[in-house]
Amino acid sequence: MFCGLSAFPITPMDAGGRVLADDLARLLERLVAAKVDSVGLLGSTGSYMFLSRAERRRAVQVAAEVLNGRVPLVVSVGAMRTDEAQALARDAEAAGANGLLLAPVSYTPLSDDEVFGHFEAVAGATGLPLCIYNNPATTHFTVSNALVARLAGLPNVAAVKNTGLPAPDMPAAHAALRALVPAEFAVGYSGDWHAGGAMLAGGAAWYSVIGGLLPEPALALTRAAQAGDAAEVARINARFEPLWAIFRELSSYRVVHAGAKALGLTRADPPLPILPLSAAAAARAAAAIEAAQAI
Amino acid sequence: MFCGLSAFPITPMDAGGRVLADDLARLLERLVAAKVDSVGLLGSTGSYMFLSRAERRRAVQVAAEVLNGRVPLVVSVGAMRTDEAQALARDAEAAGANGLLLAPVSYTPLSDDEVFGHFEAVAGATGLPLCIYNNPATTHFTVSNALVARLAGLPNVAAVKNTGLPAPDMPAAHAALRALVPAEFAVGYSGDWHAGGAMLAGGAAWYSVIGGLLPEPALALTRAAQAGDAAEVARINARFEPLWAIFRELSSYRVVHAGAKALGLTRADPPLPILPLSAAAAARAAAAIEAAQAI
Repeated sequence: MFCGLSAFPITPMDAGGRVLADDLARLLERLVAAKVDSVGLLGSTGSYMFLSRAERRRAVQVAAEVLNGRVPLVVSVGAMRTDEAQALARDAEAAGANGLLLAPVSYTPLSDDEVFGHFEAVAGATGLPLCIYNNPATTHFTVSNALVARLAGLPNVAAVKNTGLPAPDMPAAHAALRALVPAEFAVGYSGDWHAGGAMLAGGAAWYSVIGGLLPEPALALTRAAQAGDAAEVARINARFEPLWAIFRELSSYRVVHAGAKALGLTRADPPLPILPLSAAAAARAAAAIEAAQAI
Repeated sequence: MFCGLSAFPITPMDAGGRVLADDLARLLERLVAAKVDSVGLLGSTGSYMFLSRAERRRAVQVAAEVLNGRVPLVVSVGAMRTDEAQALARDAEAAGANGLLLAPVSYTPLSDDEVFGHFEAVAGATGLPLCIYNNPATTHFTVSNALVARLAGLPNVAAVKNTGLPAPDMPAAHAALRALVPAEFAVGYSGDWHAGGAMLAGGAAWYSVIGGLLPEPALALTRAAQAGDAAEVARINARFEPLWAIFRELSSYRVVHAGAKALGLTRADPPLPILPLSAAAAARAAAAIEAAQAI
Protein backbone atom coordinates (compact mmCIF):
# COMPACT_ATOMS: atom_id res chain seq x y z
CA MET A 1 0.00 0.00 0.00
CA PHE A 2 2.89 2.35 0.69
CA CYS A 3 4.78 1.51 -2.54
CA GLY A 4 4.71 2.99 -6.02
CA LEU A 5 2.64 5.98 -7.03
CA SER A 6 0.41 7.37 -4.30
CA ALA A 7 -1.83 9.92 -6.00
CA PHE A 8 -3.07 12.89 -3.92
CA PRO A 9 -6.18 14.52 -5.39
CA ILE A 10 -7.54 17.88 -4.35
CA THR A 11 -10.80 17.80 -2.38
CA PRO A 12 -13.25 20.01 -4.25
CA MET A 13 -15.50 21.87 -1.82
CA ASP A 14 -18.00 24.70 -1.92
CA ALA A 15 -17.47 28.08 -0.26
CA GLY A 16 -18.94 26.74 2.99
CA GLY A 17 -16.53 23.81 3.20
CA ARG A 18 -18.91 21.09 1.96
CA VAL A 19 -17.24 18.42 -0.15
CA LEU A 20 -18.48 18.33 -3.75
CA ALA A 21 -18.99 14.57 -3.96
CA ASP A 22 -19.51 14.39 -7.72
CA ASP A 23 -16.36 16.36 -8.45
CA LEU A 24 -14.31 14.29 -6.03
CA ALA A 25 -15.67 11.09 -7.62
CA ARG A 26 -14.73 12.40 -11.07
CA LEU A 27 -11.13 13.00 -9.94
CA LEU A 28 -10.94 9.56 -8.32
CA GLU A 29 -12.31 7.73 -11.36
CA ARG A 30 -9.35 9.08 -13.34
CA LEU A 31 -6.97 7.62 -10.78
CA VAL A 32 -8.66 4.22 -10.88
CA ALA A 33 -8.67 4.21 -14.67
CA ALA A 34 -4.95 5.00 -14.75
CA LYS A 35 -4.24 2.27 -12.16
CA VAL A 36 -2.30 4.30 -9.62
CA ASP A 37 -0.85 2.23 -6.78
CA SER A 38 -2.78 4.05 -4.05
CA VAL A 39 -4.88 7.14 -3.44
CA GLY A 40 -3.79 9.59 -0.74
CA LEU A 41 -7.06 11.23 0.23
CA LEU A 42 -7.25 14.40 2.31
CA GLY A 43 -3.54 15.09 2.19
CA SER A 44 -2.11 18.60 2.22
CA THR A 45 -3.21 18.84 -1.41
CA GLY A 46 -6.60 17.52 -0.29
CA SER A 47 -7.11 20.41 2.17
CA TYR A 48 -7.61 18.21 5.20
CA MET A 49 -6.97 20.98 7.71
CA PHE A 50 -9.69 23.09 6.07
CA LEU A 51 -12.47 20.50 6.44
CA SER A 52 -14.68 19.56 9.37
CA ARG A 53 -14.73 16.07 10.79
CA ALA A 54 -18.11 15.40 9.15
CA GLU A 55 -16.89 16.49 5.74
CA ARG A 56 -13.69 14.48 6.05
CA ARG A 57 -15.77 11.41 6.84
CA ARG A 58 -17.99 12.12 3.86
CA ALA A 59 -14.96 12.43 1.57
CA VAL A 60 -13.72 9.02 2.72
CA GLN A 61 -17.14 7.50 2.11
CA VAL A 62 -17.23 8.90 -1.42
CA ALA A 63 -13.73 7.64 -2.12
CA ALA A 64 -14.32 4.17 -0.71
CA GLU A 65 -17.39 3.84 -2.87
CA VAL A 66 -15.63 4.97 -6.05
CA LEU A 67 -12.44 2.96 -5.49
CA ASN A 68 -14.42 -0.08 -4.39
CA GLY A 69 -11.33 -2.05 -3.48
CA ARG A 70 -9.66 -1.51 -6.86
CA VAL A 71 -7.02 0.86 -5.45
CA PRO A 72 -5.89 1.09 -1.79
CA LEU A 73 -7.29 4.14 -0.03
CA VAL A 74 -4.94 5.95 2.35
CA VAL A 75 -6.46 8.79 4.39
CA SER A 76 -4.75 11.60 6.24
CA VAL A 77 -6.11 12.04 9.76
CA GLY A 78 -4.01 14.90 11.15
CA ALA A 79 -5.57 17.19 13.76
CA MET A 80 -4.45 19.51 16.54
CA ARG A 81 -5.78 17.32 19.35
CA THR A 82 -4.79 13.69 19.86
CA ASP A 83 -8.36 12.60 20.63
CA GLU A 84 -9.59 14.32 17.48
CA ALA A 85 -6.97 12.55 15.34
CA GLN A 86 -8.00 9.26 16.93
CA ALA A 87 -11.64 9.96 16.11
CA LEU A 88 -10.72 10.80 12.52
CA ALA A 89 -8.75 7.55 12.28
CA ARG A 90 -11.75 5.54 13.50
CA ASP A 91 -14.02 7.44 11.12
CA ALA A 92 -11.69 6.65 8.22
CA GLU A 93 -11.51 2.97 9.12
CA ALA A 94 -15.28 2.73 9.47
CA ALA A 95 -15.79 4.45 6.12
CA GLY A 96 -13.52 2.04 4.27
CA ALA A 97 -9.97 3.39 4.36
CA ASN A 98 -7.16 0.87 3.95
CA GLY A 99 -4.40 2.91 5.57
CA LEU A 100 -3.73 6.16 7.39
CA LEU A 101 -1.40 9.11 7.02
CA LEU A 102 -0.60 11.19 10.08
CA ALA A 103 1.26 14.51 10.19
CA PRO A 104 2.32 16.12 13.48
CA VAL A 105 0.26 19.27 12.94
CA SER A 106 0.36 21.63 15.86
CA TYR A 107 -0.15 25.21 16.95
CA THR A 108 2.10 25.01 20.00
CA PRO A 109 5.52 23.69 18.89
CA LEU A 110 5.82 20.02 19.91
CA SER A 111 8.67 18.01 21.43
CA ASP A 112 9.75 14.63 20.07
CA ASP A 113 8.14 12.92 23.06
CA GLU A 114 4.86 14.69 22.39
CA VAL A 115 4.89 13.64 18.75
CA PHE A 116 5.74 10.07 19.76
CA GLY A 117 2.82 9.95 22.21
CA HIS A 118 0.49 11.40 19.59
CA PHE A 119 1.47 8.79 16.99
CA GLU A 120 1.27 5.98 19.51
CA ALA A 121 -2.28 6.99 20.45
CA VAL A 122 -3.50 7.42 16.88
CA ALA A 123 -1.79 4.30 15.51
CA GLY A 124 -3.39 2.32 18.31
CA ALA A 125 -6.88 3.66 17.60
CA THR A 126 -7.48 1.41 14.59
CA GLY A 127 -6.12 -1.75 13.01
CA LEU A 128 -4.95 0.10 9.90
CA PRO A 129 -1.33 0.52 8.85
CA LEU A 130 -0.13 4.08 9.27
CA CYS A 131 2.35 6.20 7.35
CA ILE A 132 4.23 9.01 9.10
CA TYR A 133 3.49 12.16 7.12
CA ASN A 134 6.65 14.22 7.49
CA ASN A 135 5.93 17.62 5.96
CA PRO A 136 7.92 20.35 7.69
CA ALA A 137 6.82 22.98 5.15
CA THR A 138 3.27 22.83 6.50
CA THR A 139 3.63 21.37 10.02
CA HIS A 140 6.86 23.20 10.94
CA PHE A 141 7.93 20.03 12.74
CA THR A 142 10.68 17.85 11.33
CA VAL A 143 10.40 14.17 12.17
CA SER A 144 14.09 13.32 12.53
CA ASN A 145 15.52 9.99 11.39
CA ALA A 146 15.90 9.03 15.04
CA LEU A 147 12.23 9.74 15.71
CA VAL A 148 11.14 7.85 12.56
CA ALA A 149 13.15 4.86 13.84
CA ARG A 150 11.46 5.11 17.25
CA LEU A 151 8.01 5.38 15.67
CA ALA A 152 8.76 2.45 13.34
CA GLY A 153 8.81 0.26 16.43
CA LEU A 154 5.14 0.96 17.12
CA PRO A 155 2.49 -1.54 16.01
CA ASN A 156 0.77 -0.38 12.78
CA VAL A 157 3.41 2.23 11.94
CA ALA A 158 4.44 0.89 8.55
CA ALA A 159 5.88 3.72 6.48
CA VAL A 160 7.14 7.26 6.26
CA LYS A 161 6.57 9.95 3.66
CA ASN A 162 9.69 12.11 3.78
CA THR A 163 10.47 15.20 1.75
CA GLY A 164 12.64 14.46 -1.26
CA LEU A 165 16.02 16.13 -1.69
CA PRO A 166 17.98 17.08 -4.81
CA ALA A 167 19.04 13.91 -6.65
CA PRO A 168 22.76 14.07 -5.68
CA ASP A 169 21.79 14.08 -1.97
CA MET A 170 19.20 11.32 -2.12
CA PRO A 171 21.29 8.09 -2.04
CA ALA A 172 23.09 8.98 1.20
CA ALA A 173 19.96 10.41 2.83
CA HIS A 174 17.88 7.38 1.91
CA ALA A 175 20.55 4.91 3.05
CA ALA A 176 20.95 6.72 6.38
CA LEU A 177 17.28 6.32 7.21
CA ARG A 178 17.01 2.78 5.80
CA ALA A 179 19.82 1.72 8.15
CA LEU A 180 17.64 2.69 11.13
CA VAL A 181 14.32 1.03 10.23
CA PRO A 182 13.16 -2.58 9.71
CA ALA A 183 13.31 -4.06 6.23
CA GLU A 184 9.52 -4.17 5.95
CA PHE A 185 9.18 -0.46 6.83
CA ALA A 186 8.52 1.57 3.66
CA VAL A 187 10.40 4.82 3.09
CA GLY A 188 8.79 6.99 0.42
CA TYR A 189 9.03 10.61 -0.69
CA SER A 190 7.01 13.66 -1.62
CA GLY A 191 8.10 16.82 -3.41
CA ASP A 192 7.21 16.15 -7.04
CA TRP A 193 10.33 17.66 -8.57
CA HIS A 194 12.59 15.43 -6.46
CA ALA A 195 10.53 12.26 -6.89
CA GLY A 196 12.48 10.71 -9.78
CA GLY A 197 15.76 10.97 -7.94
CA ALA A 198 14.20 9.77 -4.72
CA MET A 199 12.80 6.62 -6.32
CA LEU A 200 16.03 5.90 -8.19
CA ALA A 201 17.80 6.12 -4.82
CA GLY A 202 15.53 3.37 -3.51
CA GLY A 203 12.49 5.26 -2.30
CA ALA A 204 9.54 2.88 -2.10
CA ALA A 205 6.86 5.38 -3.03
CA TRP A 206 6.17 8.74 -4.60
CA TYR A 207 3.51 10.65 -2.64
CA SER A 208 2.54 12.78 -5.58
CA VAL A 209 0.60 16.00 -6.02
CA ILE A 210 0.55 15.85 -9.82
CA GLY A 211 -0.35 12.15 -9.64
CA GLY A 212 -3.71 13.23 -8.23
CA LEU A 213 -4.49 15.26 -11.34
CA LEU A 214 -2.42 13.71 -14.14
CA PRO A 215 -1.92 10.09 -13.15
CA GLU A 216 -0.62 8.77 -16.48
CA PRO A 217 2.53 10.88 -16.80
CA ALA A 218 3.17 10.45 -13.07
CA LEU A 219 2.91 6.68 -13.54
CA ALA A 220 5.30 6.83 -16.49
CA LEU A 221 7.90 8.50 -14.28
CA THR A 222 7.22 6.04 -11.46
CA ARG A 223 7.53 2.95 -13.64
CA ALA A 224 10.76 4.20 -15.22
CA ALA A 225 12.24 4.79 -11.76
CA GLN A 226 11.05 1.42 -10.49
CA ALA A 227 12.80 -0.18 -13.49
CA GLY A 228 15.98 1.69 -12.55
CA ASP A 229 15.98 3.43 -15.92
CA ALA A 230 17.74 6.66 -14.98
CA ALA A 231 17.86 7.92 -18.56
CA GLU A 232 14.10 7.57 -18.99
CA VAL A 233 13.50 9.19 -15.59
CA ALA A 234 15.66 12.11 -16.66
CA ARG A 235 13.82 12.37 -19.97
CA ILE A 236 10.36 12.40 -18.41
CA ASN A 237 11.45 14.67 -15.57
CA ALA A 238 12.82 17.18 -18.05
CA ARG A 239 9.42 17.31 -19.72
CA PHE A 240 7.82 17.92 -16.33
CA GLU A 241 10.30 20.67 -15.47
CA PRO A 242 8.18 23.64 -16.69
CA LEU A 243 5.41 22.41 -14.37
CA TRP A 244 7.82 21.88 -11.47
CA ALA A 245 9.04 25.45 -11.96
CA ILE A 246 5.47 26.73 -11.64
CA PHE A 247 4.89 24.48 -8.60
CA ARG A 248 7.92 26.03 -6.92
CA GLU A 249 6.85 29.54 -7.85
CA LEU A 250 3.11 29.46 -7.07
CA SER A 251 2.87 26.34 -4.83
CA SER A 252 1.70 22.95 -6.09
CA TYR A 253 -1.47 23.32 -4.00
CA ARG A 254 -2.64 26.43 -5.83
CA VAL A 255 -1.48 25.20 -9.25
CA VAL A 256 -3.36 21.88 -9.17
CA HIS A 257 -6.50 23.65 -8.00
CA ALA A 258 -6.23 25.94 -11.02
CA GLY A 259 -5.35 22.94 -13.19
CA ALA A 260 -8.41 20.95 -12.14
CA LYS A 261 -10.58 23.90 -13.10
CA ALA A 262 -8.76 24.33 -16.40
CA LEU A 263 -9.33 20.66 -17.23
CA GLY A 264 -13.05 21.07 -16.49
CA LEU A 265 -12.97 18.58 -13.59
CA THR A 266 -14.41 20.97 -11.01
CA ARG A 267 -15.34 24.60 -10.63
CA ALA A 268 -14.22 24.65 -7.00
CA ASP A 269 -11.71 27.15 -5.67
CA PRO A 270 -9.38 26.52 -2.71
CA PRO A 271 -10.88 27.41 0.67
CA LEU A 272 -10.51 31.01 1.87
CA PRO A 273 -8.18 32.48 3.09
CA ILE A 274 -6.35 30.75 0.21
CA LEU A 275 -7.03 32.82 -2.88
CA PRO A 276 -7.42 31.33 -6.34
CA LEU A 277 -4.54 32.25 -8.62
CA SER A 278 -4.87 35.53 -10.51
CA ALA A 279 -6.19 35.17 -14.06
CA ALA A 280 -2.69 35.57 -15.47
CA ALA A 281 -1.14 33.03 -13.08
CA ALA A 282 -4.01 30.59 -13.61
CA ALA A 283 -3.48 30.78 -17.36
CA ARG A 284 0.21 29.95 -16.92
CA ALA A 285 -0.69 27.11 -14.55
CA ALA A 286 -3.26 25.77 -17.01
CA ALA A 287 -0.77 25.85 -19.86
CA ALA A 288 1.81 23.96 -17.79
CA ILE A 289 -0.77 21.37 -16.70
CA GLU A 290 -1.98 20.89 -20.27
CA ALA A 291 1.57 20.47 -21.53
CA ALA A 292 2.33 17.92 -18.79
CA GLN A 293 -0.80 15.98 -19.71
CA ALA A 294 0.85 15.14 -23.02
CA ILE A 295 4.00 13.68 -21.44
CA MET B 1 -8.87 48.38 25.49
CA PHE B 2 -5.55 47.73 23.74
CA CYS B 3 -3.44 49.62 26.31
CA GLY B 4 -1.72 48.60 29.53
CA LEU B 5 -1.63 45.05 30.85
CA SER B 6 -3.59 42.54 28.82
CA ALA B 7 -3.65 39.35 30.91
CA PHE B 8 -3.84 36.01 29.07
CA PRO B 9 -5.12 33.18 31.26
CA ILE B 10 -4.91 29.51 30.40
CA THR B 11 -8.21 27.81 29.54
CA PRO B 12 -8.55 24.83 31.89
CA MET B 13 -10.20 21.92 30.09
CA ASP B 14 -10.82 18.25 30.72
CA ALA B 15 -9.22 15.45 28.72
CA GLY B 16 -12.07 15.61 26.20
CA GLY B 17 -11.61 19.31 25.50
CA ARG B 18 -14.53 20.61 27.61
CA VAL B 19 -13.83 23.92 29.34
CA LEU B 20 -13.80 23.69 33.14
CA ALA B 21 -16.00 26.71 33.79
CA ASP B 22 -15.36 26.92 37.53
CA ASP B 23 -11.61 26.82 37.11
CA LEU B 24 -11.70 29.43 34.36
CA ALA B 25 -13.90 31.66 36.54
CA ARG B 26 -11.43 31.27 39.42
CA LEU B 27 -8.54 32.43 37.21
CA LEU B 28 -10.58 35.36 35.91
CA GLU B 29 -11.66 36.54 39.37
CA ARG B 30 -7.98 36.99 40.23
CA LEU B 31 -7.53 39.22 37.18
CA VAL B 32 -10.56 41.34 38.07
CA ALA B 33 -9.41 41.67 41.67
CA ALA B 34 -5.96 42.81 40.55
CA LYS B 35 -7.52 45.31 38.11
CA VAL B 36 -5.69 44.29 34.95
CA ASP B 37 -6.40 46.57 31.98
CA SER B 38 -7.90 43.82 29.83
CA VAL B 39 -8.28 40.07 29.64
CA GLY B 40 -7.01 38.25 26.55
CA LEU B 41 -9.17 35.15 26.45
CA LEU B 42 -8.40 32.13 24.27
CA GLY B 43 -4.98 33.36 23.23
CA SER B 44 -2.11 31.02 22.48
CA THR B 45 -1.80 30.57 26.25
CA GLY B 46 -5.55 29.96 26.31
CA SER B 47 -5.29 26.99 23.89
CA TYR B 48 -7.69 28.41 21.33
CA MET B 49 -6.56 26.12 18.55
CA PHE B 50 -7.25 23.08 20.76
CA LEU B 51 -10.91 23.92 21.45
CA SER B 52 -14.06 23.42 19.42
CA ARG B 53 -16.26 26.30 18.35
CA ALA B 54 -18.84 25.36 20.99
CA GLU B 55 -16.27 25.29 23.79
CA ARG B 56 -14.75 28.58 22.66
CA ARG B 57 -18.21 30.15 22.79
CA ARG B 58 -18.75 28.70 26.25
CA ALA B 59 -15.43 30.10 27.49
CA VAL B 60 -16.45 33.57 26.29
CA GLN B 61 -19.81 33.26 28.03
CA VAL B 62 -18.11 32.28 31.30
CA ALA B 63 -15.65 35.16 31.00
CA ALA B 64 -18.29 37.76 30.12
CA GLU B 65 -20.30 36.71 33.15
CA VAL B 66 -17.34 36.86 35.53
CA LEU B 67 -15.90 40.12 34.19
CA ASN B 68 -19.36 41.70 34.00
CA GLY B 69 -18.06 44.86 32.37
CA ARG B 70 -15.43 45.49 35.01
CA VAL B 71 -12.51 44.61 32.70
CA PRO B 72 -12.59 44.67 28.87
CA LEU B 73 -12.76 41.18 27.36
CA VAL B 74 -10.68 40.59 24.24
CA VAL B 75 -11.14 37.22 22.54
CA SER B 76 -8.92 35.49 20.02
CA VAL B 77 -10.88 34.13 17.05
CA GLY B 78 -8.17 32.58 14.89
CA ALA B 79 -9.10 29.62 12.68
CA MET B 80 -7.87 27.92 9.52
CA ARG B 81 -10.90 28.93 7.44
CA THR B 82 -12.03 32.51 6.94
CA ASP B 83 -15.71 31.64 7.37
CA GLU B 84 -14.92 29.81 10.60
CA ALA B 85 -13.00 32.80 11.99
CA GLN B 86 -15.94 35.03 11.04
CA ALA B 87 -18.33 32.70 12.87
CA LEU B 88 -16.07 32.71 15.93
CA ALA B 89 -15.99 36.52 15.84
CA ARG B 90 -19.80 36.67 15.72
CA ASP B 91 -20.01 34.11 18.53
CA ALA B 92 -17.61 36.18 20.65
CA GLU B 93 -19.55 39.38 20.03
CA ALA B 94 -22.86 37.70 20.87
CA ALA B 95 -21.40 36.24 24.06
CA GLY B 96 -20.18 39.60 25.33
CA ALA B 97 -16.63 40.16 24.05
CA ASN B 98 -15.47 43.77 23.81
CA GLY B 99 -12.69 43.22 21.29
CA LEU B 100 -11.10 40.59 19.06
CA LEU B 101 -7.64 39.22 18.47
CA LEU B 102 -6.89 37.56 15.15
CA ALA B 103 -3.77 35.60 14.22
CA PRO B 104 -3.11 34.44 10.66
CA VAL B 105 -3.06 30.74 11.53
CA SER B 106 -2.71 28.49 8.53
CA TYR B 107 -1.68 25.07 7.35
CA THR B 108 -0.89 26.10 3.81
CA PRO B 109 1.58 29.02 3.94
CA LEU B 110 -0.29 32.25 3.15
CA SER B 111 0.60 35.26 1.04
CA ASP B 112 0.23 38.85 2.27
CA ASP B 113 -2.83 39.28 0.05
CA GLU B 114 -4.43 36.19 1.54
CA VAL B 115 -3.82 37.42 5.08
CA PHE B 116 -5.19 40.84 4.14
CA GLY B 117 -8.38 39.31 2.73
CA HIS B 118 -8.77 37.12 5.79
CA PHE B 119 -8.46 40.07 8.17
CA GLU B 120 -10.77 42.21 6.07
CA ALA B 121 -13.46 39.52 6.17
CA VAL B 122 -13.16 38.83 9.89
CA ALA B 123 -12.88 42.49 10.93
CA GLY B 124 -16.02 43.19 8.91
CA ALA B 125 -17.99 40.37 10.53
CA THR B 126 -18.69 42.28 13.76
CA GLY B 127 -18.66 45.81 15.10
CA LEU B 128 -15.85 45.04 17.56
CA PRO B 129 -12.36 46.54 17.41
CA LEU B 130 -9.76 44.01 16.36
CA CYS B 131 -6.10 43.55 17.27
CA ILE B 132 -3.72 41.91 14.80
CA TYR B 133 -2.18 38.97 16.66
CA ASN B 134 1.31 38.71 15.18
CA ASN B 135 2.85 35.54 16.58
CA PRO B 136 5.30 33.99 14.11
CA ALA B 137 6.45 31.37 16.64
CA THR B 138 3.07 29.66 16.43
CA THR B 139 1.59 30.82 13.11
CA HIS B 140 4.84 30.76 11.11
CA PHE B 141 3.61 33.87 9.34
CA THR B 142 5.22 37.24 10.02
CA VAL B 143 2.92 40.22 9.61
CA SER B 144 5.42 42.73 8.22
CA ASN B 145 5.29 46.40 9.14
CA ALA B 146 4.03 47.12 5.64
CA LEU B 147 1.18 44.65 6.06
CA VAL B 148 0.32 46.03 9.52
CA ALA B 149 0.10 49.47 7.94
CA ARG B 150 -2.20 48.16 5.20
CA LEU B 151 -4.40 46.37 7.73
CA ALA B 152 -4.51 49.46 9.95
CA GLY B 153 -6.50 51.14 7.19
CA LEU B 154 -9.37 48.66 7.56
CA PRO B 155 -12.43 49.61 9.63
CA ASN B 156 -12.28 48.04 13.12
CA VAL B 157 -8.57 47.14 12.92
CA ALA B 158 -7.37 49.11 15.92
CA ALA B 159 -4.17 47.53 17.24
CA VAL B 160 -1.34 45.09 16.77
CA LYS B 161 0.29 42.70 19.18
CA ASN B 162 3.86 42.34 17.95
CA THR B 163 6.63 40.21 19.40
CA GLY B 164 8.96 42.16 21.66
CA LEU B 165 12.67 42.41 20.90
CA PRO B 166 15.68 42.82 23.19
CA ALA B 167 15.55 46.23 24.87
CA PRO B 168 18.34 47.84 22.82
CA ASP B 169 16.46 47.04 19.60
CA MET B 170 13.03 48.19 20.75
CA PRO B 171 13.13 51.99 20.31
CA ALA B 172 14.05 51.84 16.62
CA ALA B 173 11.70 48.93 15.89
CA HIS B 174 8.79 50.63 17.65
CA ALA B 175 9.42 53.98 15.96
CA ALA B 176 9.63 52.32 12.54
CA LEU B 177 6.17 50.81 12.87
CA ARG B 178 4.66 53.86 14.57
CA ALA B 179 5.72 55.95 11.59
CA LEU B 180 3.51 53.80 9.35
CA VAL B 181 0.25 53.68 11.33
CA PRO B 182 -2.31 56.28 12.47
CA ALA B 183 -1.85 57.94 15.87
CA GLU B 184 -4.93 56.18 17.28
CA PHE B 185 -3.66 52.73 16.25
CA ALA B 186 -2.23 50.92 19.30
CA VAL B 187 1.08 49.07 19.00
CA GLY B 188 1.65 46.61 21.85
CA TYR B 189 3.93 43.68 22.53
CA SER B 190 4.06 40.10 23.76
CA GLY B 191 7.08 38.04 24.86
CA ASP B 192 7.11 38.50 28.63
CA TRP B 193 10.86 38.85 29.04
CA HIS B 194 10.97 41.72 26.52
CA ALA B 195 7.85 43.49 27.81
CA GLY B 196 9.57 46.01 30.10
CA GLY B 197 11.82 47.27 27.35
CA ALA B 198 8.96 47.24 24.85
CA MET B 199 6.75 49.44 27.05
CA LEU B 200 9.61 51.81 27.92
CA ALA B 201 10.15 52.20 24.17
CA GLY B 202 6.56 53.38 23.84
CA GLY B 203 4.63 50.14 23.45
CA ALA B 204 0.99 50.76 24.35
CA ALA B 205 0.31 47.34 25.84
CA TRP B 206 1.88 44.20 27.25
CA TYR B 207 0.04 41.08 26.06
CA SER B 208 1.20 39.00 28.95
CA VAL B 209 1.33 35.29 29.70
CA ILE B 210 2.36 35.70 33.33
CA GLY B 211 -0.24 38.43 33.73
CA GLY B 212 -2.89 35.75 33.33
CA LEU B 213 -1.59 33.87 36.35
CA LEU B 214 0.21 36.46 38.51
CA PRO B 215 -1.48 39.76 37.69
CA GLU B 216 -0.05 41.82 40.59
CA PRO B 217 3.65 41.57 39.77
CA ALA B 218 2.83 41.95 36.07
CA LEU B 219 0.92 45.12 36.89
CA ALA B 220 3.84 46.41 38.97
CA LEU B 221 6.10 46.04 35.93
CA THR B 222 3.48 47.62 33.66
CA ARG B 223 2.87 50.64 35.89
CA ALA B 224 6.60 51.27 36.31
CA ALA B 225 7.04 51.18 32.54
CA GLN B 226 4.03 53.43 31.95
CA ALA B 227 5.58 55.92 34.41
CA GLY B 228 8.80 55.81 32.40
CA ASP B 229 10.70 54.58 35.47
CA ALA B 230 13.44 52.56 33.79
CA ALA B 231 15.24 51.79 37.04
CA GLU B 232 12.13 50.30 38.61
CA VAL B 233 11.39 48.31 35.43
CA ALA B 234 14.92 46.93 35.56
CA ARG B 235 14.57 46.07 39.24
CA ILE B 236 11.28 44.21 38.80
CA ASN B 237 12.40 42.55 35.59
CA ALA B 238 15.53 41.26 37.32
CA ARG B 239 13.34 39.60 39.92
CA PHE B 240 11.28 38.03 37.13
CA GLU B 241 14.40 36.77 35.34
CA PRO B 242 14.48 33.25 36.89
CA LEU B 243 10.92 32.77 35.64
CA TRP B 244 11.76 34.19 32.21
CA ALA B 245 14.64 31.71 32.00
CA ILE B 246 12.26 28.83 32.66
CA PHE B 247 9.77 30.27 30.15
CA ARG B 248 12.50 30.28 27.52
CA GLU B 249 13.65 26.78 28.44
CA LEU B 250 10.31 24.95 28.84
CA SER B 251 7.89 27.34 27.03
CA SER B 252 5.68 29.79 28.86
CA TYR B 253 2.61 27.76 27.81
CA ARG B 254 3.76 24.63 29.64
CA VAL B 255 5.13 26.55 32.64
CA VAL B 256 1.93 28.51 33.38
CA HIS B 257 -0.11 25.32 33.10
CA ALA B 258 2.15 23.72 35.70
CA GLY B 259 2.05 26.92 37.74
CA ALA B 260 -1.75 27.06 37.83
CA LYS B 261 -1.77 23.51 39.15
CA ALA B 262 0.93 24.30 41.71
CA LEU B 263 -1.10 27.27 42.96
CA GLY B 264 -4.14 25.03 43.36
CA LEU B 265 -6.19 26.98 40.81
CA THR B 266 -6.96 24.00 38.57
CA ARG B 267 -6.05 20.36 38.19
CA ALA B 268 -6.21 20.56 34.40
CA ASP B 269 -3.34 19.55 32.18
CA PRO B 270 -2.66 20.99 28.73
CA PRO B 271 -4.47 19.19 25.89
CA LEU B 272 -2.75 16.18 24.34
CA PRO B 273 -0.50 15.93 22.36
CA ILE B 274 1.01 18.57 24.67
CA LEU B 275 2.42 16.70 27.65
CA PRO B 276 2.41 18.09 31.17
CA LEU B 277 5.90 18.90 32.40
CA SER B 278 7.82 16.05 34.01
CA ALA B 279 7.65 16.01 37.80
CA ALA B 280 11.12 17.50 38.05
CA ALA B 281 10.43 20.25 35.53
CA ALA B 282 7.03 20.99 37.09
CA ALA B 283 8.70 21.40 40.49
CA ARG B 284 11.16 23.90 39.01
CA ALA B 285 8.31 25.73 37.27
CA ALA B 286 6.30 25.83 40.50
CA ALA B 287 9.24 27.22 42.44
CA ALA B 288 9.79 29.95 39.86
CA ILE B 289 6.08 30.84 39.81
CA GLU B 290 5.93 30.96 43.60
CA ALA B 291 9.01 33.17 43.75
CA ALA B 292 7.54 35.51 41.13
CA GLN B 293 4.32 35.73 43.11
CA ALA B 294 6.27 37.54 45.84
CA ILE B 295 7.63 40.22 43.48
